[in-house]
Amino acid sequence: MSKLVATCSRIREPNRRMAEETQRFLDSKTKPRRSLGRLEDLACQISAIRGTSEPEPPRKAIVVMGADHGVAEEGVSAYPQEVTGQMLLNFARGGAAINVLARHAGAQVVVVDMGVKVPLPAVPEIRVHRIGPGTRNFTKGPAMTREEVVAAVEVGTRIAEELVRDGVSLLGIGDMGIGNTTAASALVAVFTGAPAEEVAGRGTGIDDVAFKRKVDVIRRGIAVNYPDPQDGLDALAKVGGFEIAGLAGVILGGAASGVPIVVDGFICGAAALAATRIASLTAGYLISSHRSVEVGHQLVLQALGTKPLLDLDLRLGEGTGAALAMNLVEASLYILRDMATFTAAGVSDSGA
Amino acid sequence: MSKLVATCSRIREPNRRMAEETQRFLDSKTKPRRSLGRLEDLACQISAIRGTSEPEPPRKAIVVMGADHGVAEEGVSAYPQEVTGQMLLNFARGGAAINVLARHAGAQVVVVDMGVKVPLPAVPEIRVHRIGPGTRNFTKGPAMTREEVVAAVEVGTRIAEELVRDGVSLLGIGDMGIGNTTAASALVAVFTGAPAEEVAGRGTGIDDVAFKRKVDVIRRGIAVNYPDPQDGLDALAKVGGFEIAGLAGVILGGAASGVPIVVDGFICGAAALAATRIASLTAGYLISSHRSVEVGHQLVLQALGTKPLLDLDLRLGEGTGAALAMNLVEASLYILRDMATFTAAGVSDSGA
Repeated sequence: MSKLVATCSRIREPNRRMAEETQRFLDSKTKPRRSLGRLEDLACQISAIRGTSEPEPPRKAIVVMGADHGVAEEGVSAYPQEVTGQMLLNFARGGAAINVLARHAGAQVVVVDMGVKVPLPAVPEIRVHRIGPGTRNFTKGPAMTREEVVAAVEVGTRIAEELVRDGVSLLGIGDMGIGNTTAASALVAVFTGAPAEEVAGRGTGIDDVAFKRKVDVIRRGIAVNYPDPQDGLDALAKVGGFEIAGLAGVILGGAASGVPIVVDGFICGAAALAATRIASLTAGYLISSHRSVEVGHQLVLQALGTKPLLDLDLRLGEGTGAALAMNLVEASLYILRDMATFTAAGVSDSGA
Repeated sequence: MSKLVATCSRIREPNRRMAEETQRFLDSKTKPRRSLGRLEDLACQISAIRGTSEPEPPRKAIVVMGADHGVAEEGVSAYPQEVTGQMLLNFARGGAAINVLARHAGAQVVVVDMGVKVPLPAVPEIRVHRIGPGTRNFTKGPAMTREEVVAAVEVGTRIAEELVRDGVSLLGIGDMGIGNTTAASALVAVFTGAPAEEVAGRGTGIDDVAFKRKVDVIRRGIAVNYPDPQDGLDALAKVGGFEIAGLAGVILGGAASGVPIVVDGFICGAAALAATRIASLTAGYLISSHRSVEVGHQLVLQALGTKPLLDLDLRLGEGTGAALAMNLVEASLYILRDMATFTAAGVSDSGA
């Protein structure tokens, strides 16, 4: 825990002066002022986070964490639980959507087993940081203990700090876990105060009966455990998941190390909300990649105060939206670095 | 003209059967059905256009056409007219936003002088296909003759056909022309029947007085010339521009050659509308890259029946939105080609 406290204490407010300096520099480029819209906002945000008005195009890594959920035994997912582990192996072999999109984005994929039900065969592409064989069923008590949640978060902070030390300057996060839209929905209900039926969605594709069950499971999870909405760790422990806690840790570690974090969809959004409840200054380090089909995601985006970059009806997870959005983040920094100024290009400026 | 008629007669409806085959193939991949949303739509659309269920990741080119507009003398832009030519030279030297974003997207930029006011110094990076020293002021009569508009459109079809012959399989289009949001607004008013004040926007940044003038100029242009909304060439000739006509030609030539065309923002959208009025089947070949800040763009998107991929508050033109969107198009084809199937990856499929 003292490690986590130390990490959080290193998180600084992004440097607004750098953002302003970057905007002035962008205004000297051969284009009408602000005509690159949100691309300019991105360049300014990253300048503020990196503490320089000339941030270099980034080295990118996407941390994808997987774990199983005790609550899956309540029948809240269309997929059997063994899919979590099978998909981690698919990530390791490079055949999943996140691998394809991360290669296209030029991003390294870091796959982490935070606790799938049955231990996987050892493969070098999967980092093993198992907190346990999946969380406990949160309709019957807390998903994990306070010690477990701190351990899970600290796995994330350590991985983020290590990646940044190795030169990574743009982090993305992604999730894998059968049943984890239920855990994420419960977290979002806790953090935003919204009722379960407004937060729950269809996840990877469930029917009406399973949907009603899911809403009921979320309600019971909250009623049984009374998670504290002001205490991110408490909420994560009671109704979260090992991978969600780990991803909150990646965000905290990334923010403490001064790099932006591109957040994937609904599950990662819940992790981001938890991170901001653990250390509120992390909010300035987040880039929301896309608006998920998952209904509760809208509440997450509102609570985070961010507008997503993409709106492509994605609902896969794994960090796929983050991988796609990294291209835009990178584009904004190329604009900042490589575009000619009015003076250099001999173009008349209207000042408009 | 007979060349243009021949080009249009080669445009076929995209092959729906290929789209269905591609969707089935995507459904066998390790992800819940349709969970990659619009990325899956893109892969299907491109399969249908290319006439294969296994389209290769594309070779990309963005055709950026520039020209001057007689109507600029009415004071409708914040920038002096010489900026058109200055910016073409900036494109040639690689310093503009489109160069930066096209490099990032791995796309070739083809710069075309369709008729800037004063001829530019000869540089190898600019193709010279000048129809004239800018169009005539359309508040006093047609912007160009029927012969001129056909010549301009045929420049575009020729360039598109040549690029496709050289191996390009994804085209983007971009524009440059001081005063061309006025011409584009007039075209959109003609094609959609919307009143001038609902179509006109602030372009690169004009004040209230200039905005009122712009609306008045659009109204007069339409009242003086009576463009025929059913005749794309007539509308282009009367209130269009050389670069807008040329870009409509790129679309027609691209469609005739069986490749998708990524359309930039408002100006290119007006060119796309004109292309669909010349040959209605082109509509299936279009990918709208982004939703522009320019208010009339919403009408364009509705009339084209397309939903843009990006919504980033861009209003620069040059093909910048097209360059950014190409990354998503490409990503969809990598997903199609490289993702593992449930069977190959040994992952349990729920069929959801």
